[in-house]
Amino acid sequence: MEVKKGNETNQYAADLSSIKEARQRIKSVVHKTPVISSETLDLMAGRKLVFKCECFQKGGAFKFRGASNAILSLEEQEAVKGVVTHSSGNHAAALALAAKMRGIPAYIVVPSNAPKCKVQNVIRYGGQIIICEPTMESRHGAAEKVQQDTGAVLIHPFNDSRIISGQGTISLELLEEFPEIDTLIVPISGGGLISGMAIAAKSIKPSIRVLAAEPVGANDAALSKASGAIVTLPQLNTIADGLRAFLGDLTWPIVRDFVDDVITVEDQEIIEAMRLCYEILKVAVEPSGAIGLAAVLSDGFQKNPLWNDCKHVAIILSGGNVDLNVLWEALSK
Amino acid sequence: MEVKKGNETNQYAADLSSIKEARQRIKSVVHKTPVISSETLDLMAGRKLVFKCECFQKGGAFKFRGASNAILSLEEQEAVKGVVTHSSGNHAAALALAAKMRGIPAYIVVPSNAPKCKVQNVIRYGGQIIICEPTMESRHGAAEKVQQDTGAVLIHPFNDSRIISGQGTISLELLEEFPEIDTLIVPISGGGLISGMAIAAKSIKPSIRVLAAEPVGANDAALSKASGAIVTLPQLNTIADGLRAFLGDLTWPIVRDFVDDVITVEDQEIIEAMRLCYEILKVAVEPSGAIGLAAVLSDGFQKNPLWNDCKHVAIILSGGNVDLNVLWEALSK
Repeated sequence: MEVKKGNETNQYAADLSSIKEARQRIKSVVHKTPVISSETLDLMAGRKLVFKCECFQKGGAFKFRGASNAILSLEEQEAVKGVVTHSSGNHAAALALAAKMRGIPAYIVVPSNAPKCKVQNVIRYGGQIIICEPTMESRHGAAEKVQQDTGAVLIHPFNDSRIISGQGTISLELLEEFPEIDTLIVPISGGGLISGMAIAAKSIKPSIRVLAAEPVGANDAALSKASGAIVTLPQLNTIADGLRAFLGDLTWPIVRDFVDDVITVEDQEIIEAMRLCYEILKVAVEPSGAIGLAAVLSDGFQKNPLWNDCKHVAIILSGGNVDLNVLWEALSK
Repeated sequence: MEVKKGNETNQYAADLSSIKEARQRIKSVVHKTPVISSETLDLMAGRKLVFKCECFQKGGAFKFRGASNAILSLEEQEAVKGVVTHSSGNHAAALALAAKMRGIPAYIVVPSNAPKCKVQNVIRYGGQIIICEPTMESRHGAAEKVQQDTGAVLIHPFNDSRIISGQGTISLELLEEFPEIDTLIVPISGGGLISGMAIAAKSIKPSIRVLAAEPVGANDAALSKASGAIVTLPQLNTIADGLRAFLGDLTWPIVRDFVDDVITVEDQEIIEAMRLCYEILKVAVEPSGAIGLAAVLSDGFQKNPLWNDCKHVAIILSGGNVDLNVLWEALSK
């Protein structure tokens, strides 16, 4: 475990200033998403919960915050050749939408196993799709080839300062509206969302707890935190298609230093949380989006005395792009 | 058609004062529901749409506004014996919840064909259920018997000034947040929701249009408006289980005088609107709740030159209590 350098954050890929700048840059194009709550779920969790509905963000996920910040940060001569990325879906759609708004091309490398609704979103927003094998090697290779052929700028889904800063704007909105929040529970995959949110939240309110939620079948972040270095896994096994990336060299130092703990949950708990989102909150949430609710209800959280005084918990419903048959199959079991 | 008496509203069951009083009475117990929007749906509708998410209200529908206003209006000696109602579901659950909050019994007469999730909500909130046949006669008879046996106060689902005033609080929230709204599209059944909303909205902004949305298979309000008197139908045929009541003597004069027109839509259009709510808005909406979106997209609205200048349209997503199998069966066709 490396030593954290006091309160300095300038060693990190984002800080409160870059996140506030991102908010100024994107505020006219992103939705300030609503926050909802349910006394039924408060009772189940034994504390006050508020749900930040990023499923209502443009493109159906938080990803549009980072994507629009990245694209609006580009100089004109960079922008004209377009942007390229590889993504399981939500970043891809968000980047396509942000590119369309700026009037530049977006080349999207999509693994062949991406959910249909996410690919449809890319098409709806005018992205040019390049299908690849569902491996990180194939994704990187295909994206590099597009860069060479077109001169497009690579906008990585999470390992990018502009992306991290854009996602961090969620914490600004949350803590302005609910300053009493003492805990954030945030899905973790590549770490872009939680990195931005943790930096912003702890800069504003140092006492806040930031907990990551991760599937047991893709628990690389928990293993990374435990071992003090980025861990990757040979195989991933989870319904949460949005949580199948590993930490990057920009997100890892932030996760290492600003995330208090990682709560791992079983896929069955994720599915039950999707059901609760649908039945109680009336919100369509994808598996990755429901994991925060799964975490707060899990034994790993409920039975850990460290979290007994987490009384005002914000949960990020990170996205809502779920094929109806996935919801149905999960919920009808 | 009776003559409308200038701007006087004291002939009606509610007015702006009673609606503002209702807001004061219920503001600590109801959710101020969020408003969401989608550029994709704006493009489809050819105008700016905002969606008032009453599906996120307590109990999953707008009904809690009226129910809590009615129950909080009761004198203590009336309240102690409890309340009784007959309802297809959402009013029932809302009344049970409001009664539970006040600590008084709620007796709920439920037709045997009510959606399972709505009956479960009544049970969750501690209501005492009396099952009856799915006819208005059976519903009225069973409710009267409970009144005689217990002394409980009947709280009618819509034909009640307190209910109408409670539902009208939605317009206050909407027009404060979005004063530019020029049109409201509101589901109509017994008329409680649209009566309260129309009185409030036209009192604040007389130029606003208030349009009702109704299924073709339960088009009694359209026929009532056309004939100038309450029309009832021998048979109703619609997927929208929340839209199977007829206007009452308190709601009819308001609908007659303050509702500009009734747009009727086919069940298939309602189902398609449910799909759009799920896929685009990421919201679980019951058939009755989706009818406003169905109406704004329908030929009856789009091709009527009267509505060409409806540029800022608020649509009320009135409820989200839909059994998943209903959603699945509707959407997988």
